[in-house]
Amino acid sequence: MARKAVIAAAALAVSASGGQAQNDQKRLDAEASDPAKLGWMEGTPPPADKLIRFEDGSYFSFPRTRWSFSNWRQFFPSQPLHRGATPVHVFPRAERQDIDMLTFTPLGGDKPMSWKDALGANYTDAIVVLHKGRIVYERYLGVTRPDSQHIAFSVTKSFIGTLAASLAAEGRLDPEKLVTDYVPELANSGFAGATVRQVMDMTTGIAFDETYTNPNADIIRHARAGRAAPRPAGYDGPDGFLAFLPTIGKQGEHGERFTYRSANSDTLGWIVTRATGVPVRDQLEQRFWSRLGMEQDAAIVVDAQGTPFAAGGLMLSLRDMARFGEMMRLGGKWHGAQIVPAAAVADVVKGGDKAGFAKNGAYPTLSGWSYRNQWWVSHNDHGAYMARGIHGQAIYIDPKAEMVIARFSSHPVAGNVTIDPTSIPAYEALGRFLARD
Amino acid sequence: MARKAVIAAAALAVSASGGQAQNDQKRLDAEASDPAKLGWMEGTPPPADKLIRFEDGSYFSFPRTRWSFSNWRQFFPSQPLHRGATPVHVFPRAERQDIDMLTFTPLGGDKPMSWKDALGANYTDAIVVLHKGRIVYERYLGVTRPDSQHIAFSVTKSFIGTLAASLAAEGRLDPEKLVTDYVPELANSGFAGATVRQVMDMTTGIAFDETYTNPNADIIRHARAGRAAPRPAGYDGPDGFLAFLPTIGKQGEHGERFTYRSANSDTLGWIVTRATGVPVRDQLEQRFWSRLGMEQDAAIVVDAQGTPFAAGGLMLSLRDMARFGEMMRLGGKWHGAQIVPAAAVADVVKGGDKAGFAKNGAYPTLSGWSYRNQWWVSHNDHGAYMARGIHGQAIYIDPKAEMVIARFSSHPVAGNVTIDPTSIPAYEALGRFLARD
Repeated sequence: MARKAVIAAAALAVSASGGQAQNDQKRLDAEASDPAKLGWMEGTPPPADKLIRFEDGSYFSFPRTRWSFSNWRQFFPSQPLHRGATPVHVFPRAERQDIDMLTFTPLGGDKPMSWKDALGANYTDAIVVLHKGRIVYERYLGVTRPDSQHIAFSVTKSFIGTLAASLAAEGRLDPEKLVTDYVPELANSGFAGATVRQVMDMTTGIAFDETYTNPNADIIRHARAGRAAPRPAGYDGPDGFLAFLPTIGKQGEHGERFTYRSANSDTLGWIVTRATGVPVRDQLEQRFWSRLGMEQDAAIVVDAQGTPFAAGGLMLSLRDMARFGEMMRLGGKWHGAQIVPAAAVADVVKGGDKAGFAKNGAYPTLSGWSYRNQWWVSHNDHGAYMARGIHGQAIYIDPKAEMVIARFSSHPVAGNVTIDPTSIPAYEALGRFLARD
Repeated sequence: MARKAVIAAAALAVSASGGQAQNDQKRLDAEASDPAKLGWMEGTPPPADKLIRFEDGSYFSFPRTRWSFSNWRQFFPSQPLHRGATPVHVFPRAERQDIDMLTFTPLGGDKPMSWKDALGANYTDAIVVLHKGRIVYERYLGVTRPDSQHIAFSVTKSFIGTLAASLAAEGRLDPEKLVTDYVPELANSGFAGATVRQVMDMTTGIAFDETYTNPNADIIRHARAGRAAPRPAGYDGPDGFLAFLPTIGKQGEHGERFTYRSANSDTLGWIVTRATGVPVRDQLEQRFWSRLGMEQDAAIVVDAQGTPFAAGGLMLSLRDMARFGEMMRLGGKWHGAQIVPAAAVADVVKGGDKAGFAKNGAYPTLSGWSYRNQWWVSHNDHGAYMARGIHGQAIYIDPKAEMVIARFSSHPVAGNVTIDPTSIPAYEALGRFLARD
């Protein structure tokens, strides 16, 4: 089967299963599912058919997700990440009118699509494009606004991975040590024998089913333990992310291939806390929130033990997500201060093991890519790399074009393999377009 | 019985019942209960004996409350109140060393106490004193810090009452109308026949038991409905604050006397939303958070319907609470803008019905006071008035002394009648002291 056909088939399969499991409705397009028009949670109190709740799972059901992703805070206990007294870094604006009409060919497709049409195809909630540090494009759709705190899902992982890579570059964390050197509680789990580096790069051989559409998958059981998904009546499973992680078994060998398993990220959060004695929340605040001129106090979902959901709990504004991306693009430097060691940024940019990534087989849209320090690295001719979260959350950094894109989205399907075909070629096209200037 | 003896007896009674119901431990003093020393929630994960949880009620059990009140966010879903782009209003500092040694005689006592000793007697978590807009005194104790978001409990009510009084002064809310003119859903409740003014001043004759130490009291059932207190297994009561309010019955006549009932505040939140079509969260943000040079994005606890807990859900920093108080002291003006109409501030300062307040009988520490627009008004010779929350949360505004005090506290006893004897005379003494300058 040609690559184009593989991509189309994969996208269709994920799309169909995701559509079925996550909602019983016919798939509405972006316009028909516009949360600003559907009146979710309006009224005092909202009528039953407009109510979105955590307990009954409707907060995670499309099309309600188009509202809930921008209002995640009110479904979860959280800890604040204070921006402190640092002046807001205001991006200069140099908005361009020619981006909407830019065209590209979707992966696996043969007809061109405009940038503007891609926003709808991807159920974009908000998107900002920085070029040389200036905002050249910014849109807010649905109910997402500049002051919304959208759930970042697994974009959170790249913040945690950057913390870990920073600590490694600073000599405060040894990636070659065993996970159990830092977290002895994992001695009888599938993490036994794995190195910190393997956790950082997701090459551990743990038994962890990450199928979002399977209600009994490990990713769902993990979320339930952390109170990040509703628990069924009579739930007697582990209580807390850190209680779940030691129950994970082994499957395959460590270091053989890339396998995307969110449990690695929560283990990494545990490791960086143990390595430093400083909780993940405090590290996020100390290294990023209080130093990057953020405009908002962000928040992170916590479990009943006060453990932040390192794999996917960050809630932040679009421009604050862009500030983090821009700091990475600038080699970790921000207003003269080295926020992330240059060596840590370089280690992300260089990428990980492409062969081990290719062995995975689950990413037809990411041919030639690798995964390093919880970042996705394209190895394209612009050296682009991404932070990625389910349902289309993304930071896309194109160093050659001096471009950073931050996007929030509420695509009906969780897996980015469905969303990539109309995203990645659009970003690549914009990078080429801006690089000409 | 002389007033002094009544106060002492009342304080003892409340203290004893509160102590018994809210914790099974011998009452620890402020130093022995210092949460910074007790290691609550430290460790990844915290050991069982250091864990504080919502579900088992330990979050509300002294001495754990000394930690949880400063970390309320992680026990509750919340909505953010964004500070926006307004520059932070930095209070000039003119700290004085002579305040700690200031002495006063506690109500019902006969021996002088120092200001400094009163901090411990009141289990103070944080306190700031403004004089003529400058910080003359500021202390953070236990685990509370300048960036902590402490639960304000019923200080929240004064924010809501100030919104209502503002809308009334602006002609957008008519206090003489019936509650049911704005909220027809309350037609069959104890609120039927009451005016908005009676709700604002808590002179409604509703049947609502506000005894915090009784686990079946209406205030607890109200909190459970709003998910602001744990629900017992098999709970089948009302879901949401606005589902509970219509179930409240009648007891006595409307307008006869002041009776402190938190349900009035949540009804007032409902009324101001219906009167304007603007949710309480948005009004708090639009009128206060985005305009007072706040240093933090605050948060408010919400129920499963997205209704903010108007009676007691605000979580904010100490200095942000002081900014609100200072704006009131300045007649509603802030940096040249009229945030709250002068008439609304004047209506608070003037106070309410002293005779109706005295009929209540439950406030031996507040002889000669009244209640107006969800504020407590002293009618002393300095015209002082207060926002008050259980366990010692307070804003104390002394217009004559040009003084504003904001305090967070985690006293083991809920009722301020126990805390007032070592607070109110201290504030009065400081007001007299500063007024001499």
